[in-house]
Amino acid sequence: MGRVITVGRQFGSGGRELGRRLAEELSIEYYDKEIVTEISKHTSLSEDYVRQVIDHKPHNLYPITVGHSLTYIDDYAIRRFQSVFAAQDEIIKELAGKSDCVIVGRCADYILQDIKPYRIFVHADLDSRVNRCLAKQKEDEHLNAKQMRKKILNIDKNRAKYYEYYTGNKWGVKENYDLCVNTTDTVIKEFVPVIAKMFK
Amino acid sequence: MGRVITVGRQFGSGGRELGRRLAEELSIEYYDKEIVTEISKHTSLSEDYVRQVIDHKPHNLYPITVGHSLTYIDDYAIRRFQSVFAAQDEIIKELAGKSDCVIVGRCADYILQDIKPYRIFVHADLDSRVNRCLAKQKEDEHLNAKQMRKKILNIDKNRAKYYEYYTGNKWGVKENYDLCVNTTDTVIKEFVPVIAKMFK
Repeated sequence: MGRVITVGRQFGSGGRELGRRLAEELSIEYYDKEIVTEISKHTSLSEDYVRQVIDHKPHNLYPITVGHSLTYIDDYAIRRFQSVFAAQDEIIKELAGKSDCVIVGRCADYILQDIKPYRIFVHADLDSRVNRCLAKQKEDEHLNAKQMRKKILNIDKNRAKYYEYYTGNKWGVKENYDLCVNTTDTVIKEFVPVIAKMFK
Repeated sequence: MGRVITVGRQFGSGGRELGRRLAEELSIEYYDKEIVTEISKHTSLSEDYVRQVIDHKPHNLYPITVGHSLTYIDDYAIRRFQSVFAAQDEIIKELAGKSDCVIVGRCADYILQDIKPYRIFVHADLDSRVNRCLAKQKEDEHLNAKQMRKKILNIDKNRAKYYEYYTGNKWGVKENYDLCVNTTDTVIKEFVPVIAKMFK
């Protein structure tokens, strides 16, 4: 099994934790938020801006139907936006080329398609994700179950839009991954040693 | 990991082979066509009839909207049909209760939901499935790629209908399985020892 592993994940599915622990278990590199920092360095754009582009709604900044209604967005904004994409592409390829690794999110499965990474997608049912997020809620966040549910659905909607905009493929559809893992009622810490065996 | 494993599969994905080899690798029982034979014995219906019901189109024999338009189907046919379902349910629960096992198809993931089997779904892209089926074509079958493609789509359509009729759930949707495995470009024989590690 290849040991460049990409992990796509629904918010609250424990996919990030799965990716991090998997990398630890396999003693290979792990990349997640580091990619945002690297893009920021490459482009001289703030981390906040980069995060806004790659974690949120690119379609609000840049129309999918290029060439039609570009008048509302200035050239500079477009170039800035494209520079984030170009840097993301370059950095992810560079990281994957250096050594075995786990890369969470950032369309890495698509960007690395030429080297055929092992593409995992982590999902869970909504109740399970709400419960996982409530249990891990930060001290300054006081969302109830209904609010958390809304937050989760909203984040995933944006992830899906970003992925589809960037790759032209459907996000989270099993056909685009090698393995889809359902983490409903799963303790990630206990599951990782099990799935890690596949790569040993 | 539980060792009652159910395997749903797209036709031509190599799912049946994966299930059989997985059982061999884990030295546990394997049930597939044996279930048809057992249902036939329990119900005194022919294996051909049982196969027709559980592998083909139940909706042609028995309307989903029970209570509306039953006039075209006689009581005896309904009872016969229901007896197949009841026997399938009973036999699969009995087999899973006896010992660790792999059960391929037959809505076993749904029937066994109370004991929480590990539910695998095996899929692959259509080209890959066509090629796998052409390579394994029986001597008396002379289908070209186009015909094979049609056959595959037709069989899967019936599997989906049967599953949805029987379980009320969508067939092949990742949410209904613990693990979805994409076998496009995968040599099943080589992959099974890898995935088997998860259950050891």
